Amino acid sequence: MSEHVINPNVSVDCVVFGFDTQSLKVLLIEQKPVDGKPGHLALPGDLVLNDESLDDAAARVLRELTGIEGIFLRQFHAFGDPNRVKQVEDLDWLKSYRDNPEARVITIGYYALVKMDDFAPEASSFAERVFWKDIHEVPSLAFDHNSISESALVRLREEFENRKVGFELLPEKFTLSQLQSLYEAIEDRELDKRNFRKKVMKEKLVVPLDEKQTGVVHKPARLYELNLEVLSQAPVPGSFVTMKF
Amino acid sequence: MSEHVINPNVSVDCVVFGFDTQSLKVLLIEQKPVDGKPGHLALPGDLVLNDESLDDAAARVLRELTGIEGIFLRQFHAFGDPNRVKQVEDLDWLKSYRDNPEARVITIGYYALVKMDDFAPEASSFAERVFWKDIHEVPSLAFDHNSISESALVRLREEFENRKVGFELLPEKFTLSQLQSLYEAIEDRELDKRNFRKKVMKEKLVVPLDEKQTGVVHKPARLYELNLEVLSQAPVPGSFVTMKF
Repeated sequence: MSEHVINPNVSVDCVVFGFDTQSLKVLLIEQKPVDGKPGHLALPGDLVLNDESLDDAAARVLRELTGIEGIFLRQFHAFGDPNRVKQVEDLDWLKSYRDNPEARVITIGYYALVKMDDFAPEASSFAERVFWKDIHEVPSLAFDHNSISESALVRLREEFENRKVGFELLPEKFTLSQLQSLYEAIEDRELDKRNFRKKVMKEKLVVPLDEKQTGVVHKPARLYELNLEVLSQAPVPGSFVTMKF
Repeated sequence: MSEHVINPNVSVDCVVFGFDTQSLKVLLIEQKPVDGKPGHLALPGDLVLNDESLDDAAARVLRELTGIEGIFLRQFHAFGDPNRVKQVEDLDWLKSYRDNPEARVITIGYYALVKMDDFAPEASSFAERVFWKDIHEVPSLAFDHNSISESALVRLREEFENRKVGFELLPEKFTLSQLQSLYEAIEDRELDKRNFRKKVMKEKLVVPLDEKQTGVVHKPARLYELNLEVLSQAPVPGSFVTMKF
């Protein structure tokens, strides 16, 4: 990195949501201790280099801090409160890690949604630790990272509603219970099983297969697959996720 | 402005769409001439001040260059190609107007949709001229402003589809022809009158009134009003427009 010029005024922050088949987690780092004080919890984020695009910066920063790469990070909002990096509790860290700790930093927020089990994050660079945290249990984060995480969640829910972002996280063949769990995790509410099934069948988002679950102790449920024809009619199809099944 | 510090690395650009009851226009400026050469055409945009938020910067810059104020500008994307302000044809202007013409500038794009007739833009600051241009006739613009305008149009169409942004531009009571013109202008396609009416009635977006047009030479058409109950169920209702009727 040393030969690259760092832009003092612009950073990227990554909100990576992980779905574990039941709930949504968000990926957090703990900053390395500064002067013996334990580091703060934060989103993976850092300043951009002057010769890289914002998308490239987001991918690089996520990789450098957490080891995660190859996921689709989607830009969702720029955060520019003039005081967003001026809190006393963040200044020590900025003084240790930045040449211009007083500089105003505008940050560009990126988010992604992945299957948690596909990734084993590993802390490096100024991250002491990296871990998943349930979205209901996010502690106080550095800078304005709580607000950035919440905005990302709002955007994720909009994209789930409007473009069916997140359907890619299902196995190729799935039960309606698995589909319901995805809805419940992202929309963060319990759904009535019967009404949910009615709605899904009416929207023709999934197609029943002539197959049932195998290797389960309970009564095996019917399997379904995505109706890609209907899904591809969602507005701006395919502009979001290119993730592995 | 002189007492404020200008951030050399971050700007805002405003894409203001004007609806004239039939078509969509976009608001452009012509930069003041530099060294006798005529200025380029561009979106209204400029660097942010270090003590203002991005939203405030967008409102200020639009006001300073075009006189337009009091409209809801919505942030939609940050543009950060490292070479976006490095084209030869833009450098003369940057050298005349900026302390650090070589600085990398990331710009935050804002867009708005207004009734064209509500505003009479007036050029000031480094704008020599300000004018509306049909979205099909946008000439070559400075920097990456063509690409920013196109992205804004894509976002406007998504928001129109998903959140019914733009319905506020209709008069309080309107005919189905007026509604169809709004759809046709924003979606940029001709719609079949019969199918359009069927779809609108099915979606219950409008309510027929027991009233007809007056003062028209043709056979007066029935008037309708928005079904605010249905419209308010659009995702994230009301987060966009607070415009005059």
